[in-house]
Amino acid sequence: MKFIVIGGDAAGMSAASRAKRHQPDMDVIVLEKTGDVSYSACGMPYAIGDPERKIDGLIVRPADIFRKKQGIDLRTGHTVTAIDPENKTVTGQTAARDPFSLEYDKLLIATGASATVPDLPGIDLPGVMVLKTLEEGRRIKNYIREKKIQKTVIIGMGYIALEMGDALRGLGIAVDMVKPRPAFLPWMHSDLANVVRSEVEKNDVRVMAGHVIQRIEAGKEGLTVVCEDTTLPADMVLVAVGVVPNSGLAKTAGIETGVGQSIAVDHQLRTSAPDIFAAGDCADAYHVVTGQKTWVPLALRANRAGWAVADNVCGKEKSLPGIAGTAVFKVFNLEVARTGLNFKTAADAGFDPAGVVIQTRSRAHDHPGSSTIFVHMVGDRQSGKLLGVQMVGREGVAHRINAPAVALFASMTVDAFSQSDLAYAPPFGPTWDPVLTAANQLLKKI
Amino acid sequence: MKFIVIGGDAAGMSAASRAKRHQPDMDVIVLEKTGDVSYSACGMPYAIGDPERKIDGLIVRPADIFRKKQGIDLRTGHTVTAIDPENKTVTGQTAARDPFSLEYDKLLIATGASATVPDLPGIDLPGVMVLKTLEEGRRIKNYIREKKIQKTVIIGMGYIALEMGDALRGLGIAVDMVKPRPAFLPWMHSDLANVVRSEVEKNDVRVMAGHVIQRIEAGKEGLTVVCEDTTLPADMVLVAVGVVPNSGLAKTAGIETGVGQSIAVDHQLRTSAPDIFAAGDCADAYHVVTGQKTWVPLALRANRAGWAVADNVCGKEKSLPGIAGTAVFKVFNLEVARTGLNFKTAADAGFDPAGVVIQTRSRAHDHPGSSTIFVHMVGDRQSGKLLGVQMVGREGVAHRINAPAVALFASMTVDAFSQSDLAYAPPFGPTWDPVLTAANQLLKKI
Repeated sequence: MKFIVIGGDAAGMSAASRAKRHQPDMDVIVLEKTGDVSYSACGMPYAIGDPERKIDGLIVRPADIFRKKQGIDLRTGHTVTAIDPENKTVTGQTAARDPFSLEYDKLLIATGASATVPDLPGIDLPGVMVLKTLEEGRRIKNYIREKKIQKTVIIGMGYIALEMGDALRGLGIAVDMVKPRPAFLPWMHSDLANVVRSEVEKNDVRVMAGHVIQRIEAGKEGLTVVCEDTTLPADMVLVAVGVVPNSGLAKTAGIETGVGQSIAVDHQLRTSAPDIFAAGDCADAYHVVTGQKTWVPLALRANRAGWAVADNVCGKEKSLPGIAGTAVFKVFNLEVARTGLNFKTAADAGFDPAGVVIQTRSRAHDHPGSSTIFVHMVGDRQSGKLLGVQMVGREGVAHRINAPAVALFASMTVDAFSQSDLAYAPPFGPTWDPVLTAANQLLKKI
Repeated sequence: MKFIVIGGDAAGMSAASRAKRHQPDMDVIVLEKTGDVSYSACGMPYAIGDPERKIDGLIVRPADIFRKKQGIDLRTGHTVTAIDPENKTVTGQTAARDPFSLEYDKLLIATGASATVPDLPGIDLPGVMVLKTLEEGRRIKNYIREKKIQKTVIIGMGYIALEMGDALRGLGIAVDMVKPRPAFLPWMHSDLANVVRSEVEKNDVRVMAGHVIQRIEAGKEGLTVVCEDTTLPADMVLVAVGVVPNSGLAKTAGIETGVGQSIAVDHQLRTSAPDIFAAGDCADAYHVVTGQKTWVPLALRANRAGWAVADNVCGKEKSLPGIAGTAVFKVFNLEVARTGLNFKTAADAGFDPAGVVIQTRSRAHDHPGSSTIFVHMVGDRQSGKLLGVQMVGREGVAHRINAPAVALFASMTVDAFSQSDLAYAPPFGPTWDPVLTAANQLLKKI
């Protein structure tokens, strides 16, 4: 049996490793375009922001371990340019421009996602950067050091943009953030989004939401981001406006795509083509709350999907229930977390949502060091079901979101969730955990 | 309608307040033996250990707020000495020794628990202390200051003993801990218990488990705790060997008691006597994993049970599913948490348990500041159900325990729990959350 994996990051290497563990005699070939495999991409803003750290420290397992210890035929510098589902072959070329063609019994497309590059004049100028691959991370880190960057503009205000803003401010670099839409963190309840915005601004990041960007120009003084109504000078421009699934290869091969052009897969990660799986940031997933397809490129589900592909390739039927879109990020001194639906996505999915926002404390009454925790919780008036939670605070948010995340997997009602026996001790929260207080309040509305 | 509540702490005041909110014209009388109501008892070790804090800062809401703002007839210094379920009266006497007798329509017994006082010669000597009520907290804090305490012996090694050991060390006071049984934290998997013990010992607390205590003696130099095989000198002895439910009043009135002599209640908190409820540390509860009765005196369930009594008293039927025994404490730099059953209690309850212990990191690969997290997870081989989790680590434990706690409420299998979409970002954990790694390992065994 020959199992070919296109892409050597989270999903690809998880699948390759697990397949080899299941069936050591299986021929497992991984074709990776770049020179890097198995790295912690999410760590890049932190490694860029810390002069003591190297980007290469993010490599979790070097290529040679996969080759020598695990017996995976890992080929870096191998770009696949076509899949032929009928003849079950993949073709491409190496970094040295040598063509290759390989037959497969089972194929996994784990091509990931790429940073979205907006169609702006000047986007290709030197000093205009995107951040997704390890190589892009190295480039940014080197550029900051070599060019002694002092002033940056970040286009975009999503979580990578915010993490990078934090990282750059930590290096003493000036940061302006700009984007065309006026809402800051539009997926978040505005009460919570305002808390995050205020934290970002308190750390001397200029937040310019609602400015349409026209072009980037290069002059003697450096770069300028030209908006309709203002100009922003910079030594470096970071474009962080989101990511797109790398599904072109699959589409050309006639494989169906779904949400946001991601590759459509079933609960077993099978694509529309026989013996071809897709997993990771290039593929879609089921949302456990809506039952509908969604596309949320996050690391855990990439790893988990890679494992499930290996199980299915090896005949151990594995079906993934789906995702809840649980995520957390840190920006300056705030932890910002979410799981499930917000009011709008709940209404869009056909629920009759009710929501509350509560403020409570991160530690018990009178315990020193306490700070405010904000919780936004959404439930369905009709079924009583818990639909989603958002949270912001200086401490105790990152892991606290996991309790409602589990409740979403168990399809719990707000009432049932409100009865959960959660941990309490004075240094860690009030007697009624913030998520329970939110649930108690929400119960009055549904 | 006259609703009488015996005991003015968590369960009692929660019930009184909520009943008054539901029915403002209801006659709600709270009879509290001491002068204190509504305080955060769990905060006492921290307030004792911090020279900047006062014990009275732990009072969440002063008595007058309940009286004036909420219209509760709160009578402190009122000790109930008898309940007559047939004539629906309670009788007792005030601090000034005036007798009183009151009729009730509905009665709540919320008498709490008391520190266990072992039957040891010398237990009544000055300088031998227990800690449960606010008054006992004040006494200890004053004694330490006034007598310039430098050396203490703590009898017992449960979580209050450990929190007090931490607090006393923080004040620069020497601490020996002693108990007759040899196992340190016997409810905890020994791998994890050893991590806690080592942390305690690293902070210069002498841990003397397995020493039978014979008596406490007073001499010129101070107190001495005399064991069969050693003697321990001290300026102050703290007895923290557990708590017992204050169920004597109920028992004398012919009300049924259950586990550990706690008052037996149903899911609506009703006792065996008509119109008499019990809630808080004096009452038992159903365990959501075993379905059996259990007695776990913890603050959250006391508050929740108080609310449920108010609902039921006011004709809003409320049934509590039960508890999972979720708890956390901090000792020096460790967070120690548990939920559900351990291997032994699972076997005792008729399950066929399998367990794993895993070690993983508190932050992502290469992220600075990472420390070890230990997880012990127990599941049932027969049903595949998750039964319990224990966790120890320097960070990220206290709230992380809540994810499996919710899973226990939802009766999830280990397999279903392992599919939960939990939050990931490099500062907060590895891609696979420690509880997921534990679940993945446990799945191989069940």
